[in-house]
Amino acid sequence: MIYILGGSGGIHIAYKLSRDFNLPIIHLEYKTFPDGEKYLRILDEVSEKRVIVIQSMYRNPDSHLIEYFFLVSTLKELGAKEVIGVIPYFPYARQDTRFNPGEVVSLEIVAKLIEKVGTDKIVTIDMHLHRYHDIQELFKIPAKNLTAMKELARYIKSHYKLSNPVVIGPDEESEQWAKVAADVIECNYDILEKKRISPEEVILSPREVNVKDKDVIIVDDIISTGGTMAEAIKFLKRQGARKVICACTHAILAGDALSKIYRAGAYDLISTDTVPSPVSKVNVSKILYEEFIKYL
Amino acid sequence: MIYILGGSGGIHIAYKLSRDFNLPIIHLEYKTFPDGEKYLRILDEVSEKRVIVIQSMYRNPDSHLIEYFFLVSTLKELGAKEVIGVIPYFPYARQDTRFNPGEVVSLEIVAKLIEKVGTDKIVTIDMHLHRYHDIQELFKIPAKNLTAMKELARYIKSHYKLSNPVVIGPDEESEQWAKVAADVIECNYDILEKKRISPEEVILSPREVNVKDKDVIIVDDIISTGGTMAEAIKFLKRQGARKVICACTHAILAGDALSKIYRAGAYDLISTDTVPSPVSKVNVSKILYEEFIKYL
Amino acid sequence: MIYILGGSGGIHIAYKLSRDFNLPIIHLEYKTFPDGEKYLRILDEVSEKRVIVIQSMYRNPDSHLIEYFFLVSTLKELGAKEVIGVIPYFPYARQDTRFNPGEVVSLEIVAKLIEKVGTDKIVTIDMHLHRYHDIQELFKIPAKNLTAMKELARYIKSHYKLSNPVVIGPDEESEQWAKVAADVIECNYDILEKKRISPEEVILSPREVNVKDKDVIIVDDIISTGGTMAEAIKFLKRQGARKVICACTHAILAGDALSKIYRAGAYDLISTDTVPSPVSKVNVSKILYEEFIKYL
Amino acid sequence: MIYILGGSGGIHIAYKLSRDFNLPIIHLEYKTFPDGEKYLRILDEVSEKRVIVIQSMYRNPDSHLIEYFFLVSTLKELGAKEVIGVIPYFPYARQDTRFNPGEVVSLEIVAKLIEKVGTDKIVTIDMHLHRYHDIQELFKIPAKNLTAMKELARYIKSHYKLSNPVVIGPDEESEQWAKVAADVIECNYDILEKKRISPEEVILSPREVNVKDKDVIIVDDIISTGGTMAEAIKFLKRQGARKVICACTHAILAGDALSKIYRAGAYDLISTDTVPSPVSKVNVSKILYEEFIKYL
Repeated sequence: MIYILGGSGGIHIAYKLSRDFNLPIIHLEYKTFPDGEKYLRILDEVSEKRVIVIQSMYRNPDSHLIEYFFLVSTLKELGAKEVIGVIPYFPYARQDTRFNPGEVVSLEIVAKLIEKVGTDKIVTIDMHLHRYHDIQELFKIPAKNLTAMKELARYIKSHYKLSNPVVIGPDEESEQWAKVAADVIECNYDILEKKRISPEEVILSPREVNVKDKDVIIVDDIISTGGTMAEAIKFLKRQGARKVICACTHAILAGDALSKIYRAGAYDLISTDTVPSPVSKVNVSKILYEEFIKYL
Repeated sequence: MIYILGGSGGIHIAYKLSRDFNLPIIHLEYKTFPDGEKYLRILDEVSEKRVIVIQSMYRNPDSHLIEYFFLVSTLKELGAKEVIGVIPYFPYARQDTRFNPGEVVSLEIVAKLIEKVGTDKIVTIDMHLHRYHDIQELFKIPAKNLTAMKELARYIKSHYKLSNPVVIGPDEESEQWAKVAADVIECNYDILEKKRISPEEVILSPREVNVKDKDVIIVDDIISTGGTMAEAIKFLKRQGARKVICACTHAILAGDALSKIYRAGAYDLISTDTVPSPVSKVNVSKILYEEFIKYL
Repeated sequence: MIYILGGSGGIHIAYKLSRDFNLPIIHLEYKTFPDGEKYLRILDEVSEKRVIVIQSMYRNPDSHLIEYFFLVSTLKELGAKEVIGVIPYFPYARQDTRFNPGEVVSLEIVAKLIEKVGTDKIVTIDMHLHRYHDIQELFKIPAKNLTAMKELARYIKSHYKLSNPVVIGPDEESEQWAKVAADVIECNYDILEKKRISPEEVILSPREVNVKDKDVIIVDDIISTGGTMAEAIKFLKRQGARKVICACTHAILAGDALSKIYRAGAYDLISTDTVPSPVSKVNVSKILYEEFIKYL
Repeated sequence: MIYILGGSGGIHIAYKLSRDFNLPIIHLEYKTFPDGEKYLRILDEVSEKRVIVIQSMYRNPDSHLIEYFFLVSTLKELGAKEVIGVIPYFPYARQDTRFNPGEVVSLEIVAKLIEKVGTDKIVTIDMHLHRYHDIQELFKIPAKNLTAMKELARYIKSHYKLSNPVVIGPDEESEQWAKVAADVIECNYDILEKKRISPEEVILSPREVNVKDKDVIIVDDIISTGGTMAEAIKFLKRQGARKVICACTHAILAGDALSKIYRAGAYDLISTDTVPSPVSKVNVSKILYEEFIKYL
């Protein structure tokens, strides 16, 4: 049997997972004191139990991390047999190497701390792996990187009338997701080759795509400031694309990213609920359930 | 013709309203400087136009208010013919009278400032009116308080298998919404009479409700810290209610409100997207469209 | 007689002003609710009184502005005879014109709202006036822009052993302050002519300054991200300056501004307490008292 | 030799320590990305060096903690010989035991993480130790809890004209600090015995103090919401105290704590700069220097 505990960044997923798949919940009380410190209390017995801690780490990644460390440490202290950390949105993934001398390689430090507090296994969703080929290179404990791309593609297929669709990845790294989505939607896919001029500027050139009069689905793992996505939309519209529908797993949507994307000409934008946002349409509980079914 | 402009608190509603009902958008660029000041730029021509400014004012009400004042003032300066302010979640509604000498009656001051910047008409949704019978008593300009209760009830009716349902309002003020929801769901309704012992403590006593073996839908305008709702759920569960489904227009969900509600025994919780949250299931754009159809 | 009321952004100045110069205080209770709304209560009788509301508007300018509107409106409602607004740090001063079509001219809107809520007179300190020659052009009500530069210079003169000092303004706009400071320190002054290459990049060229082997005091009205100041320090150190001491009225110090300034080679940095910071050394209460002495 | 590195919460102390005592600085670049993640870069060579990392953890304790973990881990990675963590304000000190089943004992977890990232020695100032008699019980690495009480008392002695002074601790735990301060000021001390009725309410009864016509100095380690201090002030004023001057090491000053204290009748309030605030008058760099002098 597995038990589900949702931290403040995962409670919306935890309760849905519990109810839809009839998994028992470990309840949590939490509050923040006026001085900024958090208070946490695990309300149910956890001794000898296998507990899944769900904590997505968006917006205030540090606060979510500390809460995660507190929860896992305490579960182990209270006798939990196994603690599986589910971090639907994994923070600090970009900072995976030392670009300049003296830089903090945040991703590695975060990974080590997650292990040190007693996590027995880690599960995440569409973690942005640049320099790692596999999440297992980052962790010594068993680690798994699930994808939400199929669910996103299914949602698009069933909710939009698509005419002559094609899936586009906005850069080379997104080819993996474009392929998965195209499989579900049963259409072709391609990517845009991107040349980064500066941290803010990007120039696009197509590989072999002809999007004229097609409905385009752009897929990516994450939308942060929306710059990459907006450039892709504008480029595709200039190339004659009809509807452009954007899908991503993690809709961080910092600043006016949402506005930027619609201004660029998007017909719509959808995401999962790893980061709750106004465009969260796909709940990831089913994806997580399929991973955990083996424990039941 | 009407034009839609979404502020940072209303853009998710603005773009949906624009697309679903084919209304033209006035685009907005916005960012925050490192010193905390905001930058705003209206990107399209507004001269001689009738513009609907959508700005829901949750979480950082002061920042959303100032942005609203900036936008309406500037629209008027730039020659807009008429500015209709749509404030789906209207802040400071509780502070509508001077309970103790010297207290700031925030609601009145906010209302006056909204008028002073040049708003020609104001529209809100399920604004919590305690001491006012009608929103028009608060404003000199035409003002309208729409309700999302029908849409919430329709969502519940079509998404949950209800057996022997009854709608419950958690207090006397919610009777108005219980009635509307019961009409849609085609069942009885009742309210819980609540005695407030202290700002934090509440004791409940039923009017004539018998919820034993019934599926209960609790409806309210707003869930803030979740205290009232959690108490109602616990009470109803003790009385023998089966599934308890909670619905509210505005899911503020401060602190661990979401956790509190599920811990209390709720089967599910849904809200509109006036306040984007992980439980936002009902988009209010249709409700707004019905109000604005007369201008088209 | 005048009465002093400090808002949440001015209380540190209000109590010092009250105690040092024996002026009566109007006490204020304030708190923030979990939903982000503020609660304010004026605890003393204000009817027929002349009240000075001190509210510096740093870091969360919107929240401080709304609080100011609430306080002034309420003071007038409660019968205050005259309300003088003291805004030691005045926000949105940079946004004083429409650089591009459709931009919000925040400064003008803020000024108008300050008047509309009933402010009878406005007083600020070293407000950054770019395109206005006089603060009175911005306000219809009597308005005064005080300076803290003399007090800053006096502090430097008495706290540092200066050898062969010269005062430098980092750009043309700061000449006014360099002059005042040089008068107090009894030395020469000059400015750096700055060419802005991009919003982030600045190139400096001296007018006629020779700083070799001199102790340099750089004076400016405001340090925000610290970029301008850091460039000036580096330039002056390269030119052979000995100690470089920086002084500003408003130490916003966004991001790692403090670090930037010391990294650039500053010996020290001081500011007033219009924006409380770790480098606030000069209290502005005396400057304000001298303005208000006429009312006593 | 020792090198000083100030994190974002300690930079104001680091640069003062460096300059006043001629200690070399390790410079740090830091910024926050729009998605809330932090970027850190250590700008100087640290290999084979003994480095003191100064990071006070106020207001956003979690963000300061994560930054501390990042810095210490990276210093060790880059070959630093020894890392001494200086945490002037140590967070989560209240949560030092499990009051109710399932509660997170945050203090212990924080202490363990500080050790796990590679800290070789830890130094703090007036850490609130309730259930520990000595900070060394909390840490396996060498740990030291310095006090700022002497410096605070010296400041008061030299800046206020005291007539017939007495030092008062507001509760039993503050007796240690009252004694130290009374020694410096050369006067008697006593404490108030406090009965906590509820988390918010406190009743006071004196031990053997007679404060009538005396100037009272109240000393405590920390002022958070200001409730305890305000009650002590009111009580002492009712007992006939003349001036009441409050001193604390850590001025957290959450909400309207500052206002509360002055409203209660305080003549003045001072603190150190472990938490930068408008009342920070005593810099702790000298206290730290005396601890580190042995390494020089």
